[in-house]
Amino acid sequence: MRIAYVNGSYIDNALASVHIEDRGYQFSDGIYEYIAFYNGLLLDGDLHFKRLERSLRELEIGMPVVPSALRVIVRELIERNGREEGGLYIQVTRGVSPRNHIYPKNVRPSLVMTVCGAKTPKQSEFENGVKIMSCHDNRWERRDIKSISLLPNIMAKQEAGRQKMREALFIETDGTVNEGSASNFFMVTKAGVVTTHPADNDILPGISRDVLIKLATKAGIAVDERKFDIAEAKAAPEAFITSTSINVLPVVKIDDKLIGKGVVGEITMKLQELYNSHIYKQTGKKF
Amino acid sequence: MRIAYVNGSYIDNALASVHIEDRGYQFSDGIYEYIAFYNGLLLDGDLHFKRLERSLRELEIGMPVVPSALRVIVRELIERNGREEGGLYIQVTRGVSPRNHIYPKNVRPSLVMTVCGAKTPKQSEFENGVKIMSCHDNRWERRDIKSISLLPNIMAKQEAGRQKMREALFIETDGTVNEGSASNFFMVTKAGVVTTHPADNDILPGISRDVLIKLATKAGIAVDERKFDIAEAKAAPEAFITSTSINVLPVVKIDDKLIGKGVVGEITMKLQELYNSHIYKQTGKKF
Repeated sequence: MRIAYVNGSYIDNALASVHIEDRGYQFSDGIYEYIAFYNGLLLDGDLHFKRLERSLRELEIGMPVVPSALRVIVRELIERNGREEGGLYIQVTRGVSPRNHIYPKNVRPSLVMTVCGAKTPKQSEFENGVKIMSCHDNRWERRDIKSISLLPNIMAKQEAGRQKMREALFIETDGTVNEGSASNFFMVTKAGVVTTHPADNDILPGISRDVLIKLATKAGIAVDERKFDIAEAKAAPEAFITSTSINVLPVVKIDDKLIGKGVVGEITMKLQELYNSHIYKQTGKKF
Repeated sequence: MRIAYVNGSYIDNALASVHIEDRGYQFSDGIYEYIAFYNGLLLDGDLHFKRLERSLRELEIGMPVVPSALRVIVRELIERNGREEGGLYIQVTRGVSPRNHIYPKNVRPSLVMTVCGAKTPKQSEFENGVKIMSCHDNRWERRDIKSISLLPNIMAKQEAGRQKMREALFIETDGTVNEGSASNFFMVTKAGVVTTHPADNDILPGISRDVLIKLATKAGIAVDERKFDIAEAKAAPEAFITSTSINVLPVVKIDDKLIGKGVVGEITMKLQELYNSHIYKQTGKKF
């Protein structure tokens, strides 16, 4: 049976509920994290917990439980679900209060957690790459907060699915490539520089993104965090997207334009190896 | 006892809940309406129901029940709450489905309704006007959809409250005045023209806004729907905001700038009368 954690209780997921006046439901007044685990071990758990705390601070929502208790609940929930491998979803909202835009006082934040199966791409996607579409970035300006205010993200992803594309790539009005609807975007330039949007308010500071930048730098691969436009991205010899659930996923086509020769590039392959060995070192999981 | 309606049942509001995997909770994948009622009668109900259907269409969410059933539930809920006067809140989300950005198929939309007391401003606010603050509009670009993706709205309202301001006025980067965080904004020009932002994607097509425009036009008052900037708004002799809960609420100060002489303007007063008599004609409620 799938077990969820809701505000202090471990319960049958089918029965897990929150009050209709939870501000997460009425105002998208909350944040979340999604953490992969393998062999029962969290991948980059500390980085996710740190980002969760940052998102809460940005919204002036308190921690629902102390950080050490959060970790205990996470371990307990994974164990109760009897899964060795999968994804842990954590959502924190400002709490339950009669509907009013102003933040309520003395309200306990809501904490909800669920566990699901791994959402890893197919092996063929890792090996052959995926196609993605570009679309106008119509989101709000605080994409650095991992909030549950995800309506534009799901609308973009839905449109990508309709066009048989793996992901939607958000492009600023001036052509700047921001990030995917649920991933960060990288290109590799002709000079071999791994290039991605700087971690400012325009994108989510992805954990996989940050980890990969550090791994690449350590391995002597040049990395540049700078803005670039969609024309430069389409002309790049290599590209890929990263996230907690897709790891390093090669991109071989953007809209109608093949990236390089339309096959997974060499530097991308090298980065996949680096990231996979990072996963292996932390959790013993082989990709 | 306060009674809520949740997916087919009328229940004690304290026990009213939705599943944690309701897409409204995880993605803000839903829309809402707030309708005022007086003497048990909805104010501009048809216009609200029409906008609700439009919001759902824009998000490709089906109607949770047929329109006539929606109206029956509304009447029943108001009756069960034993209130003559107050606000009806309707929320529709895409429904419950295991977390995945792509829209699920064959899922029944969730329908939640609550009733609360009237949120009408104090008489002194109607008579003396209110102060509001301007702030940068950092929202997404589909503000015409009345979605529950309201995080920037509540953050702006919170900041307004902190500054002892009644409302936050969203200003575009180029200075254009869009609307309030939960209201539409109007200014009256020196020539006596009642002026407000056109109903495009940048603002919510407020019901009170639309009704007031029609009432003013019919009364021979000139109305112009055009863009204008914050400097022009601050220099205007009169200003006010409108919404379902505040009716026509005069604005006498924006940031540090008095509007006109800092008292309620003559045309604003005339519009208050027109709007109040509209409420009276429909519901018998006197303001």
